[in-house]
Amino acid sequence: MNARKIPDIIIGRLPVYLRALQRMSDLGLKTTSSQELGEQVGISAAQIRKDVSQFGEFGKQGTGYSIEYLIEKLREILKVNRIWDVVVVGAGDMGHALANYQAFHNRGFRVVAIFDNDKSKVGAPIGKFSVEDAENLAERIRELGVKIVMLTVPASAAQSVADLAIQAGVKAILNYAPVSLNVPGNVKVQYIDPSAHLQRMTYYL
Amino acid sequence: MNARKIPDIIIGRLPVYLRALQRMSDLGLKTTSSQELGEQVGISAAQIRKDVSQFGEFGKQGTGYSIEYLIEKLREILKVNRIWDVVVVGAGDMGHALANYQAFHNRGFRVVAIFDNDKSKVGAPIGKFSVEDAENLAERIRELGVKIVMLTVPASAAQSVADLAIQAGVKAILNYAPVSLNVPGNVKVQYIDPSAHLQRMTYYL
Repeated sequence: MNARKIPDIIIGRLPVYLRALQRMSDLGLKTTSSQELGEQVGISAAQIRKDVSQFGEFGKQGTGYSIEYLIEKLREILKVNRIWDVVVVGAGDMGHALANYQAFHNRGFRVVAIFDNDKSKVGAPIGKFSVEDAENLAERIRELGVKIVMLTVPASAAQSVADLAIQAGVKAILNYAPVSLNVPGNVKVQYIDPSAHLQRMTYYL
Repeated sequence: MNARKIPDIIIGRLPVYLRALQRMSDLGLKTTSSQELGEQVGISAAQIRKDVSQFGEFGKQGTGYSIEYLIEKLREILKVNRIWDVVVVGAGDMGHALANYQAFHNRGFRVVAIFDNDKSKVGAPIGKFSVEDAENLAERIRELGVKIVMLTVPASAAQSVADLAIQAGVKAILNYAPVSLNVPGNVKVQYIDPSAHLQRMTYYL
């Protein structure tokens, strides 16, 4: 179903739909409508129907969507009907928070290791992990077959760590370092920069 | 300059330009071009020129942009030529990381308090803060005149905390809870949900 190119903006909305549907399911609900889902996520019913219909016919006119079925289909589409191993680089406060983050559970991800280049941190316990030496990052990425890293290193180190990880086989980077990364076309990057998110809102204040 | 309505997608790119320019400035650079800036941030030179020109004439044909001047203008436009006080609600790992986050420095924000409803956490030190009782959240938001909160509470608590904060005068919410919020039209919300960011990338793997 990925033969046709779906706009990335639509792909970006699917995790939001999935998150809302999983929440409905947790609350014991069985069916929903594009109207109801739209109210949950702040997106119009028409947009939701249009987005979802890109991938097939998942709802019935009049009866709406089966929540479990739509969850299953969205997880298939987003390839999170499996668990992806993820590595954290940078064992500061943010890396610490990510290594212990409970909300990856049930959403397709599992942190498997955390690294730092500060020798005084190597070996220190973080939750169920022991901080590993960043010197071994490339080797460990290959060994673990990891495709996804989360970078919580300083901005000045982010590009070189990204380069190393990509060389070792990483295809997706969630970058918490406040700097844009240059990566090959076959590698995806998403940015989490709280200051940038805040600045996008202060414009309107 | 906000009289004309600028598309939000453009507003969303300005913090990225500002971040890259601040980095160039830190490195001692004085001028840049839309070409060079574009390479830094992975956006075309034409797009950057178009975005920036929405707000006036900040560069000269042939000589490019003065980095300091463009920084000053972008900070004015994004209203971060001042410091905004921000409150963190939720003193778990993520709240802890945000309370200690160094990278707000120089980008327009300052955490002024952190709250939790868990009485066993109230009074505990986090960096230079002492966790405050969430019971007093509304009162303290009014007292501090805070317009921005960062929510790191569980999904189940996020809406009610948001409602309370908005009633107390908050106009912008950076929401780390993995749930969509319903807010009035005059309140802005931005979402940081690492699982959703990761899912947006696994689609392509």
